Amino acid sequence: MKLLHTADWHIGRTLNGYPLLDEQRETFKQILDIAKQEQVDGIVIAGDIYDRAIPNPEAVTTLDEMFRKINLENHLPIYAISGNHDSAKRLNYGRAWMKQSDFYLNTFIEEAFTPIETPQAQIFLLPFFDPMDARTYYGHHDMPNEQVQEIKTISQAMNLVVADMKKNFDPNKKHLLVTHFAVTPNQDTELELTSETNSKVGGLATLTSDEFSDFDYVMLGHIHTRFASPTDNIRYSGSPVKFNVKEARIKNKGKGVDIVTIDDNGINREFKPLTPKTDLIVLEEDWDTLCDEKFYSQQPLDSAWFAITIKNFDPSEHVHTNIRAKLQKHYKTIVELDYQVKASDNQIQTINTNINDLSPEETVDQFFKTITGKDLSNQQKTLVENIFNEVERARK
Amino acid sequence: MKLLHTADWHIGRTLNGYPLLDEQRETFKQILDIAKQEQVDGIVIAGDIYDRAIPNPEAVTTLDEMFRKINLENHLPIYAISGNHDSAKRLNYGRAWMKQSDFYLNTFIEEAFTPIETPQAQIFLLPFFDPMDARTYYGHHDMPNEQVQEIKTISQAMNLVVADMKKNFDPNKKHLLVTHFAVTPNQDTELELTSETNSKVGGLATLTSDEFSDFDYVMLGHIHTRFASPTDNIRYSGSPVKFNVKEARIKNKGKGVDIVTIDDNGINREFKPLTPKTDLIVLEEDWDTLCDEKFYSQQPLDSAWFAITIKNFDPSEHVHTNIRAKLQKHYKTIVELDYQVKASDNQIQTINTNINDLSPEETVDQFFKTITGKDLSNQQKTLVENIFNEVERARK
Repeated sequence: MKLLHTADWHIGRTLNGYPLLDEQRETFKQILDIAKQEQVDGIVIAGDIYDRAIPNPEAVTTLDEMFRKINLENHLPIYAISGNHDSAKRLNYGRAWMKQSDFYLNTFIEEAFTPIETPQAQIFLLPFFDPMDARTYYGHHDMPNEQVQEIKTISQAMNLVVADMKKNFDPNKKHLLVTHFAVTPNQDTELELTSETNSKVGGLATLTSDEFSDFDYVMLGHIHTRFASPTDNIRYSGSPVKFNVKEARIKNKGKGVDIVTIDDNGINREFKPLTPKTDLIVLEEDWDTLCDEKFYSQQPLDSAWFAITIKNFDPSEHVHTNIRAKLQKHYKTIVELDYQVKASDNQIQTINTNINDLSPEETVDQFFKTITGKDLSNQQKTLVENIFNEVERARK
Repeated sequence: MKLLHTADWHIGRTLNGYPLLDEQRETFKQILDIAKQEQVDGIVIAGDIYDRAIPNPEAVTTLDEMFRKINLENHLPIYAISGNHDSAKRLNYGRAWMKQSDFYLNTFIEEAFTPIETPQAQIFLLPFFDPMDARTYYGHHDMPNEQVQEIKTISQAMNLVVADMKKNFDPNKKHLLVTHFAVTPNQDTELELTSETNSKVGGLATLTSDEFSDFDYVMLGHIHTRFASPTDNIRYSGSPVKFNVKEARIKNKGKGVDIVTIDDNGINREFKPLTPKTDLIVLEEDWDTLCDEKFYSQQPLDSAWFAITIKNFDPSEHVHTNIRAKLQKHYKTIVELDYQVKASDNQIQTINTNINDLSPEETVDQFFKTITGKDLSNQQKTLVENIFNEVERARK
């Protein structure tokens, strides 16, 4: 049995206002081609299918078409879950009809306990949830209220959920899990990986690989780089498309999908790369270099987007220059423009001009730092995170 | 062959802020019961399924459950279209999977030309569209541009669409049409019926019954009362729920669905009433009467909502009274409260306190009247209507 593992499609996302839909359609084509070439038995999509709770109409139409191509035109099963970016209620619409053609899409905890049965494996589809969802679920399922109120961390909730899944384990089959969380290698390490929300991984919102030790293989979504995979059989596929400049800065940045083969020899994984339609190139140079034809003519100007930081920038020299317009003449699509200014006290300051590129949590964090000169404490960070989670919840 | 004809569910609608979802669930139960008792071969839903382009999550969940009960639990086909309140793109999501179990849902013109074939009839499902949609469609289907630009009214567009449908007519079957427009009896009459948007029927946005003369029977949505049906075989089913106070004022206001029987004897229609969970009662009385226990104790205080107009209201007598609070003690749920004030020049003025109850067009209309003392001309009204249509289009 062969599965293609992908995640974090974030259909409808933009990069500083530049729509990524064409990129997403292009990588989708490649994913479908890989699935057909490899003759897989299904495609796993591990959450964050849309970029937001209320995707725009074009995103809805595009996703519908992608799903149709996989499931109805090519008759491939889909094993999918919602992520933290999806609205569980909205994405749930229509799933009862999709099931008729082996398109499985879970968005609520209660849908996760009954696995999809294949001859060799049981596939458990556990959507993203938070401790409050777990309290609601267990509160409605015969758990005494005191015990329900004790579910405070995602780790506590996950232990209960996994224990309930294990009740349905068939000892003669492999046990696969598809889910959408930040998972670190073990209880003692707090990796500083960045997820798509740019929040640090670790703390209350994090799970450790130990919690999934009862599964033979875990296909994760949430963190956008496969290099964040906590163990050899608890894996992030990464997103098919680069979503921000931070990601473009990471070395070894190739995007792709995993082909996971389950047979009598065990479970094997093979990485298949995806080629971006438009690459995202980070340039950090002085103004003169950036404007030098010898330099910019060597860049792939027609097939890439640029994130540019002007180094050693002296605003007084450019009072009458429209910096962006001048650079745009050469570089065409500039998705981000930063200035590294030599400050009066000789400290280098980077001014990020794109507040839209910051997560709500980071915005608060930077504001706090600007005002107080200090970082938020871990406790404060958790508080801020919880507040934004609640706001987000209200919108779903 | 028997069909149940309903329309204008407007799932998720509120009445001056009071959610109607419970009402909608209750009438849905009754509709499903009627369908089962009558052993119909399908349920027709003629548009305006949701109340808005982006329904809230509860509306989405509720509609999904209703559709499931009809189609997957009771194995009844659904023949549905989108109305002007629905987002064609959003509601289109998932239809390819729904079709697998005879749940047909059309939201675009191009989906309307191929009828659903039953042994006795062809069912054409034509969603709401406007002349711009028709220009887009025909512009992509080999029509010369000059001709495309000539499509200016909905009537011109409909003639083209019906002509294209007729190419697929099977002469051995009855031809049924499901659609969502304002249709008046014939070309010479301009009925002043009110649709759900409260705009007058007639003019550029109106069709006449002649345009549908090639169909044996037409099941319409858009106008919320069945008494607006233009002919004996071109019918509005009306909405299952009363949506506003204006509607509650209309005599002979019973809501219901039609059972349409197609057999060798022709086509027969039978009306089946629905009973509201909560009735909407309009009271227009003097303050003293409204506060008189003999009067209010005779009202169905626990099972109805009230829309109250205080007649001969003298504000100077009630400076220290919280009018709404006082009335709410007796009438519990007051969804609308108006004052009929004796103005200084002895003209009776009704002050509508609920601007939320007005359509955008009516708001402009009233504002214009207040400022200029004149009504908008027909040309101005059309202009205002077009502006709001464009705004609405941009959101879909």
